[in-house]
Amino acid sequence: MGFTSTEIHLKRRPNGMPVAEDFLFVENPLADPAEGQVLVRNLYLSVDPYMRGRMNEGKGYAEGYKLNEVMYGGAIGRVEASRNPAFAEGDLVSSNNGWRQGFVSSGRDMGKLPETSLPASVHLGPLGGTGRTAYEGLLGAAHMADAETVFVSGAAGAVGSIAGQIAKLRGCRVLGSAGSAEKVAFCQEIGFDYAFNYHEGHLLTHLREGAPDGLDVYFDNVGGDHLEAALSHMKRLGRIALCGAISQYNATTPVPGPRNLAVSIGMGLNLRGFIVGMFPELRESFMRDMTGWLEAGQIIWKETVHEGIRSTPDAFIGLFTGGNLGKMVVKLGD
Amino acid sequence: MGFTSTEIHLKRRPNGMPVAEDFLFVENPLADPAEGQVLVRNLYLSVDPYMRGRMNEGKGYAEGYKLNEVMYGGAIGRVEASRNPAFAEGDLVSSNNGWRQGFVSSGRDMGKLPETSLPASVHLGPLGGTGRTAYEGLLGAAHMADAETVFVSGAAGAVGSIAGQIAKLRGCRVLGSAGSAEKVAFCQEIGFDYAFNYHEGHLLTHLREGAPDGLDVYFDNVGGDHLEAALSHMKRLGRIALCGAISQYNATTPVPGPRNLAVSIGMGLNLRGFIVGMFPELRESFMRDMTGWLEAGQIIWKETVHEGIRSTPDAFIGLFTGGNLGKMVVKLGD
Repeated sequence: MGFTSTEIHLKRRPNGMPVAEDFLFVENPLADPAEGQVLVRNLYLSVDPYMRGRMNEGKGYAEGYKLNEVMYGGAIGRVEASRNPAFAEGDLVSSNNGWRQGFVSSGRDMGKLPETSLPASVHLGPLGGTGRTAYEGLLGAAHMADAETVFVSGAAGAVGSIAGQIAKLRGCRVLGSAGSAEKVAFCQEIGFDYAFNYHEGHLLTHLREGAPDGLDVYFDNVGGDHLEAALSHMKRLGRIALCGAISQYNATTPVPGPRNLAVSIGMGLNLRGFIVGMFPELRESFMRDMTGWLEAGQIIWKETVHEGIRSTPDAFIGLFTGGNLGKMVVKLGD
Repeated sequence: MGFTSTEIHLKRRPNGMPVAEDFLFVENPLADPAEGQVLVRNLYLSVDPYMRGRMNEGKGYAEGYKLNEVMYGGAIGRVEASRNPAFAEGDLVSSNNGWRQGFVSSGRDMGKLPETSLPASVHLGPLGGTGRTAYEGLLGAAHMADAETVFVSGAAGAVGSIAGQIAKLRGCRVLGSAGSAEKVAFCQEIGFDYAFNYHEGHLLTHLREGAPDGLDVYFDNVGGDHLEAALSHMKRLGRIALCGAISQYNATTPVPGPRNLAVSIGMGLNLRGFIVGMFPELRESFMRDMTGWLEAGQIIWKETVHEGIRSTPDAFIGLFTGGNLGKMVVKLGD
């Protein structure tokens, strides 16, 4: 039963862009589960940009990663052995115990996946934290109404590609920015009305072309110049969901904020920062809506899959070098 | 009846700090009111920091001032002659027809003041746009709850001094920043729990001392370094009302935004820009609450009074040079 799990520790805090040497692989022998415990073997790990923030010292995210401890993160696993009546061998479970091949748990920090015809990794993607982030950002943080004009940055990424499709399903006009021609093509394939490569031309010119009347909602995954351009093109009483700032996660010196933040005053703009789970009142409708959309084939999602626990640092670093289309996952088993 | 009104035109758009030469005095002979019209002589004009933004080219505030036209702004006047049944000679009225000694109106752009034992200029101060701005910022933009910890910048100014007192009346702990020892003393006199001179020491050190557990609400009249310091000291799910950015109104080059705006993400902060009137649902409760507080002597307010229409540009410029304690008004008559 018990097996040796390779797990990944944070060896030192990255200085700027993370490198392989920031991480350490540690072999951890897992015992057989004791009375009340469950032994889980992870099948898929999630790597997400927000994790970069947790690698820094100091507050921001309440729970930062500790040095020389295993890092946590979203994971899907299978119960290998159970002495807890709530779980049976073979159950698929979701937990925040990623960055490791397996773990022993009391069962309180994990949940059984709902039955679905969809592949297991969907619970790290559209039906997991990724999809819920997109849903909470649009409907919780930004109070998006049907048929509004919505701009999503990082639109070919995990959260962005789902956010754009949710907005489309709610009858919105949707603009998206991405960092390559391939990603722009993907955005067009999944229904964005106007997608552009932010390496070409000026952001504000693109926004004016794609949304001549301005933006009701901006879903910000990027920060920096994207946020500044969007602020200049919001409609009166527009709403901005601050979901990520991937442009500055690896900055080693403070990045100036948007020079035009004060336009928010006269325009009555609202900027709301959030992380997934801050709108618990949306949990139920998210599960219902997203399950329905997925089963009806109304949401397209892509994964970029790395294989094996030892590929995890590379997968994570790839998030910041444009290496992913859709959700970045690490596959450990079937 | 009709009289010659001196009015003030915007002669050219200020470059940085406004100067006297940006304004032009123009003599405008007012005719007797025609059928349906009212002739009003202004008694008090309001000068406010937001007016600086309206002097610039381009959007931001929907209605900017036009060159070579009379500027508008809050004013209290007395009806000198009326051929409109809704107004009688001697009525005190409030309008947005300031920066002039008088005007002829259809009556649709002005309202009779409610009867009160308070002096007329109170309708430019706590019972007017100034007080309503403070009230809407705290209760509309920032969703302030009773007994929270609130920081107000520009705390000795017109809006700030009222905002601080409203927060105190709602049982909050209130911090305030101001630009001189005299202003700090005024903040203490009106009940701020912790007031400091922002020219002395570090902003963040003051905030930590005055609010060891962090801020629930920040009422921002200043922008710039104040906003950055407050962002670093907000509690989780804190709320910021973006009311003004007086530190940068006269900047001639773009001012960098707060370098730490991204803390809003993990902390779930909300930043809401607003100008007075954006929360019409609060109008009734504002009038009721503020009238009650004033009649009970629970709100102290100060005015810095300039005399005569020709002092208006100086009064306005004084807003940016620390020249006012409380509300800056120009008195034209009794």
